[in-house]
Amino acid sequence: MSDIQRHHSDQRLSRLVIHGNMVYLAGLTADDRKQDMKGQTIEILAKIDKLLAEAGTSKSRMLTATIWVTDMRDKAKMDEAWIAWVDAKNVPARACVEARLGSPDTLVEIMVQAVK
Amino acid sequence: MSDIQRHHSDQRLSRLVIHGNMVYLAGLTADDRKQDMKGQTIEILAKIDKLLAEAGTSKSRMLTATIWVTDMRDKAKMDEAWIAWVDAKNVPARACVEARLGSPDTLVEIMVQAVK
Amino acid sequence: MSDIQRHHSDQRLSRLVIHGNMVYLAGLTADDRKQDMKGQTIEILAKIDKLLAEAGTSKSRMLTATIWVTDMRDKAKMDEAWIAWVDAKNVPARACVEARLGSPDTLVEIMVQAVK
Repeated sequence: MSDIQRHHSDQRLSRLVIHGNMVYLAGLTADDRKQDMKGQTIEILAKIDKLLAEAGTSKSRMLTATIWVTDMRDKAKMDEAWIAWVDAKNVPARACVEARLGSPDTLVEIMVQAVK
Repeated sequence: MSDIQRHHSDQRLSRLVIHGNMVYLAGLTADDRKQDMKGQTIEILAKIDKLLAEAGTSKSRMLTATIWVTDMRDKAKMDEAWIAWVDAKNVPARACVEARLGSPDTLVEIMVQAVK
Repeated sequence: MSDIQRHHSDQRLSRLVIHGNMVYLAGLTADDRKQDMKGQTIEILAKIDKLLAEAGTSKSRMLTATIWVTDMRDKAKMDEAWIAWVDAKNVPARACVEARLGSPDTLVEIMVQAVK
C-alpha cells in the first residue's frame, strides 16, 4: 500500500489526500448552485466536515484555508457561514480572494489543509 | 548545507524547493505563449515532470495542485492535457480558478506540492 | 496544550499557525492602504518578518509564497519591494496571480509557508 492515501478521486483530482499526518482537500464547491453565497458556503463546510472526519480529523485541526469568492462584495455572506462553523478557538491561517470559478453559478470554493 | 534545498532560483523565486521529503514547485507557466491553453498546459506539465524527477519523485506522488486559467471557458482544454498526463490512479487534491497571469498571453499557471 | 499553536487569531483566522516545524501565515495585507503597491508590499513584508520571528524562523526559511495583486500591470512595483527584501540565496517557490482583494484599495496580499 502506498504511503499516500487518495479518496473520492475522479480522473482529474482526489477530494481527499492523506500523507502521514497531513490531510489535503481539493478545492470544494457546492452541488446546489441555486443557493446564494452563504448557502453554498454552508454546503461546502459540511463537505469539509465529512472529508476531515473520514481522514480521522476535524475542522479544529485545520492549518490553512484558501477561499475564492466570485464577488468580493458578497464576502460577508461567506464569512457569516464560516464564522458560525469554525471552532472559534482553533481558526486556520486563511486567505480569501476573488476569482471566477468552474461554472458561472459557483459562488465560492474552499481548499483546506489539516493535520490528523 | 542547509536542510532546505533550492534549485533553479532567480532573484525572486526558486522553481524547486525541497525540505525533508516534501517538494514544492513554483507556479509554472509556458515559455512558448503562442500556444493555446492546451499546448501551454502540455509544456508546463513537462516542466513539472522534469523538476519532480530532479527531486527524486514523480507526478504519481503529487499531493496538491493549484491551477490558474485566464479564461474559465477554456478550462476543458487545460483539463484535456491534464487528464492525459496525470497518473490516473494517483491524482492530487486540486483547485482550478480563473486569474489574470504574469503576461497577457500566459493562459495557464500550475503550482504543485509533492512528496518524495 | 495542543500540538498546533495559533497566534493573532480573530473569529475567522489565525495570522500565524505552527505545527511541528512548519509555519503557516494567513494571507496578509497592508493596513495603510493609501500606499501604492510597492508601499503596501513593504508593509506586508515587515509583518511577515515579525510573524516569522515570533515563530522562531525567518524569511530565509520560507518554502512557498502565494502573491495576489489587483492589477498585474503593477506587478513590477510589488517585485521591486520583494527583491529588495528576500534573502537572495534563499528564495521560496512562488506564484503571483491577479485577483480582487478584500477591499478596493487593497492592492496586494501575500501568504507564505515556512519551516523553523
